[in-house]
Amino acid sequence: MTLSPEQQAEIDDLRANPQPTLRTVSEGMEKHLYSAIPVLDHGFVRVVDYMGDDAAICQAARVSYGKGTKSVQNDEGLIRYLMRHWHSTPFEMCEIKLHVKLPVFVARQWIRHRTANVNEYSARYSILDREFYIPAPEALAAQSVVNNQGRGEALEGEEADRVLRYLRDDAMRAYDHYEEMISQEGQKGLARELARMNLPANVYTQWYWKVDLHNLLHFLRLRADAHAQYEIRVYADAICDVVADWVPFAYKAFEDYRMGGATLSATALDCVRRMLKGEAVTQENSGMSKGEWREFMGVLA
Amino acid sequence: MTLSPEQQAEIDDLRANPQPTLRTVSEGMEKHLYSAIPVLDHGFVRVVDYMGDDAAICQAARVSYGKGTKSVQNDEGLIRYLMRHWHSTPFEMCEIKLHVKLPVFVARQWIRHRTANVNEYSARYSILDREFYIPAPEALAAQSVVNNQGRGEALEGEEADRVLRYLRDDAMRAYDHYEEMISQEGQKGLARELARMNLPANVYTQWYWKVDLHNLLHFLRLRADAHAQYEIRVYADAICDVVADWVPFAYKAFEDYRMGGATLSATALDCVRRMLKGEAVTQENSGMSKGEWREFMGVLA
Amino acid sequence: MTLSPEQQAEIDDLRANPQPTLRTVSEGMEKHLYSAIPVLDHGFVRVVDYMGDDAAICQAARVSYGKGTKSVQNDEGLIRYLMRHWHSTPFEMCEIKLHVKLPVFVARQWIRHRTANVNEYSARYSILDREFYIPAPEALAAQSVVNNQGRGEALEGEEADRVLRYLRDDAMRAYDHYEEMISQEGQKGLARELARMNLPANVYTQWYWKVDLHNLLHFLRLRADAHAQYEIRVYADAICDVVADWVPFAYKAFEDYRMGGATLSATALDCVRRMLKGEAVTQENSGMSKGEWREFMGVLA
Amino acid sequence: MTLSPEQQAEIDDLRANPQPTLRTVSEGMEKHLYSAIPVLDHGFVRVVDYMGDDAAICQAARVSYGKGTKSVQNDEGLIRYLMRHWHSTPFEMCEIKLHVKLPVFVARQWIRHRTANVNEYSARYSILDREFYIPAPEALAAQSVVNNQGRGEALEGEEADRVLRYLRDDAMRAYDHYEEMISQEGQKGLARELARMNLPANVYTQWYWKVDLHNLLHFLRLRADAHAQYEIRVYADAICDVVADWVPFAYKAFEDYRMGGATLSATALDCVRRMLKGEAVTQENSGMSKGEWREFMGVLA
Repeated sequence: MTLSPEQQAEIDDLRANPQPTLRTVSEGMEKHLYSAIPVLDHGFVRVVDYMGDDAAICQAARVSYGKGTKSVQNDEGLIRYLMRHWHSTPFEMCEIKLHVKLPVFVARQWIRHRTANVNEYSARYSILDREFYIPAPEALAAQSVVNNQGRGEALEGEEADRVLRYLRDDAMRAYDHYEEMISQEGQKGLARELARMNLPANVYTQWYWKVDLHNLLHFLRLRADAHAQYEIRVYADAICDVVADWVPFAYKAFEDYRMGGATLSATALDCVRRMLKGEAVTQENSGMSKGEWREFMGVLA
Repeated sequence: MTLSPEQQAEIDDLRANPQPTLRTVSEGMEKHLYSAIPVLDHGFVRVVDYMGDDAAICQAARVSYGKGTKSVQNDEGLIRYLMRHWHSTPFEMCEIKLHVKLPVFVARQWIRHRTANVNEYSARYSILDREFYIPAPEALAAQSVVNNQGRGEALEGEEADRVLRYLRDDAMRAYDHYEEMISQEGQKGLARELARMNLPANVYTQWYWKVDLHNLLHFLRLRADAHAQYEIRVYADAICDVVADWVPFAYKAFEDYRMGGATLSATALDCVRRMLKGEAVTQENSGMSKGEWREFMGVLA
Repeated sequence: MTLSPEQQAEIDDLRANPQPTLRTVSEGMEKHLYSAIPVLDHGFVRVVDYMGDDAAICQAARVSYGKGTKSVQNDEGLIRYLMRHWHSTPFEMCEIKLHVKLPVFVARQWIRHRTANVNEYSARYSILDREFYIPAPEALAAQSVVNNQGRGEALEGEEADRVLRYLRDDAMRAYDHYEEMISQEGQKGLARELARMNLPANVYTQWYWKVDLHNLLHFLRLRADAHAQYEIRVYADAICDVVADWVPFAYKAFEDYRMGGATLSATALDCVRRMLKGEAVTQENSGMSKGEWREFMGVLA
Repeated sequence: MTLSPEQQAEIDDLRANPQPTLRTVSEGMEKHLYSAIPVLDHGFVRVVDYMGDDAAICQAARVSYGKGTKSVQNDEGLIRYLMRHWHSTPFEMCEIKLHVKLPVFVARQWIRHRTANVNEYSARYSILDREFYIPAPEALAAQSVVNNQGRGEALEGEEADRVLRYLRDDAMRAYDHYEEMISQEGQKGLARELARMNLPANVYTQWYWKVDLHNLLHFLRLRADAHAQYEIRVYADAICDVVADWVPFAYKAFEDYRMGGATLSATALDCVRRMLKGEAVTQENSGMSKGEWREFMGVLA
């Protein structure tokens, strides 16, 4: 990621001028405000604004008149209770606004999370920068041989070289042509809204993304998961670190009940009960398909 | 509205302790934080938290890297442009959290606005207070004789007295019985989740309601409108005053383009064009039904 | 529930006139169309329209060009896979429209499910009927002594009699006064939008409720659960029976993975692993609170 | 657009087998079911399923017990009334499911309409086809010289030739490299989820898109508008033709009140009133900015 000196100066300026507020302040979040966390080769995530903290979750849960917090200890227990029993509305009382720079193919996955507010850089109106995601060598993964949707080990040698050459050359050529097509020197110049169609999906875009904590945690559960595509997972991981500082109790409960937890079916629970009674349960007598059994064994391992 | 001394002390305490923040601060909104604005006989609205200001709307519209604001003058023009052309996403970048105390029949209308976050006081878990909305004499309106959904003039004399007596007596009796039914003195006591069904729809409830500015303005357009029921309109009016202090440019544009504006159909626009050319347009030659024509005349009056 | 002869004749008429369609038809659902399933003393649920079936879920999952179904066997496996891995969008491809008659206090819980379309009978415009929910004796539950939000055993004898008398008498009196207030005989008559506030929360209302299958299953998971209030659970149970006939594969998967399943935290999974290795795990060495441990024991029992 | 013989045979087969249903049937819509309407060079829209018709809108508005329709004439008047007064929920009672094939840069605009259900062809899992949108010569527009977001007249001669050559050659080369990178002949083969990043935004994708009529009309208002990008407008136009056959009353009201109508601000309405009284209103004394005045003159022209 490269911030221009002007951008860095602007961030420094914003961080240098605290103002008094009567609102709830999350100390952990104030540390992050405006600073850009680098992700991938040219991307970043930065917190632009936030509302609420752990106490706001409890306040909403209690709908008590005032602070709603009796003691820090109680708050953590209440938050764990809410998370365990899928009470979602109190977590909706916190809100975060992020500025994200990301490749278009990542943006296309991200936007599928509908319960969020988005303002994206417009390539109808403005000219995109010459910035493309080129994977680091260790991220240049082969197609999985066991899973249509997965990755295998990294490519190597000649094959890796050729892929990187294709990705770089095609991106540069596409951008050269993009510039030539929209140029108004000695010609009319193609409309920007059309010229952009020549750019590949690894071009970077950016947006403001605002979401409540409940929906953010749902996003993180899916996108910080080991099965998520690496290129969106690194964004989710960066956001996890921010959330851990913002609402530490909620984040710890999230780690325990969601990220580290697992949902077992009625059939799987029955198998667990049989196994605890000493029965030798196998896939054949489990009532599960081979795929389900393999996943179940993974959970118990 | 009656705040207990403890509640007032808590508000005073919250207002006495500003903390430094790096976030955007709306001076106009800080004045309102936590204070209860009285609405109806026992209700209130109070701002519990907020995110963003006029500049945040412009920042999102520009998706520029930093502040996104060039000058105050430009910001107002941009906000007017966005409002005029129905660009909704930049207004979604601001968020407000309100604590509202309101009668249940008002809450039932309010909740129909789905794009918001709500945590309501639970009458399954907790005991409702003995507080009921009893209209002021001037709000004791007769059924409209021209409009199934409207109100006519205020009831008077014996009729008004009887209505008030019924409302008061039925509410008090229902609450007495509610208390008797849930009492655990000398009996098991009916479950709260059942006992609440005896309470009439003018009983007060309360909730935290969090919404983005775009959806809030949509709510205000419908509920601060002259055709909205008086009992929800007074809440909308109170919120309008808050919004005017929070995001003054957006609120002024909202007043001009939404509250004071009108949508004309193709047929109505054609009539306006004909009238401006000097033609005598009547309902008969307008292409509109009588109802539409009456509304159209109302807009031009 | 009492349908008037006219209503029953209308239903019979609608059921007597099949028309040809090229759309997907669910045989199981056609059986239910228009018929009213009685719920509580005056309520009902009836299917008014639907879109899609099990095959439509698979078609969306495959986004294949045509039917997307290779064989019935494959479809069931695919639907189980989708449910197990929380793939929600294919289930959103089915839609149902219900006509529901229900007490207002149930409607208030129901409406909290925001991702649905609703048109409710308007008491601003129309006059409500004299119909109130009065619990059957076995549903007249005491407040739980162990759980603020729960029910204990049924009230009996004098206490039960008094509760039923209060509920009936207060409802009848409130309705008498409602009628007297809105009457326009010899007086102006109170506006309907005001008079309705005198009616208690057990008065019946009705609405059209349209929802996609994913959100419907989420509703059913919460509301057909043993912890849901009885008065909404009976509606959820009635809908479950309909869904089982409409999309049998999806419903079976839902029963296995959601209704009968359980989510275990990282801590709980760790305890299961330790127990399977023969370790004696107790609440004290489990890392769980007493409440969590009790729930965990309940899952394993 | 090119349908393979197999695809056409499948459509013919689906259209050849009507089944009886008790649901509401829209004759106008049955004609469209499954058939692909060509859009752009390789795209299409086809109706895969639908729910409801004009009568269903009225039924919901009346929440009457049965059909809710008194006479066809009344229905049209009611639908016009609902549209004029922005009553949105009755229109939500109709639902449509479309199968759409469209270029990725169009899909990126389309997906911003969040209140819809989507299942898109997955390029993580599957291999994209070698199909790219190449504009027809008359759609090869220059950047507007008056409007950052608009198009001017079509490019011509050498400039047009060069643009078409770039678009075609870059797409073909990118696809060649895509194929080479994912090939598993003599090499591991790059993961599909990575290889897709090399493809430009004019590559075609496809999805199932399901939406209610209210949100569909909102989409059409914005995307069938003269200011929408041509490449999405042609999809909106195709859908407009379908909607006109599906719900003819609703579509006519939509044309009159939305597509052909205009919203005037309080300031603009005041100007109209002054003009009708004979006053010479100019931009200078109008209270509007130059841009607003120009748009206002456009509405009155």
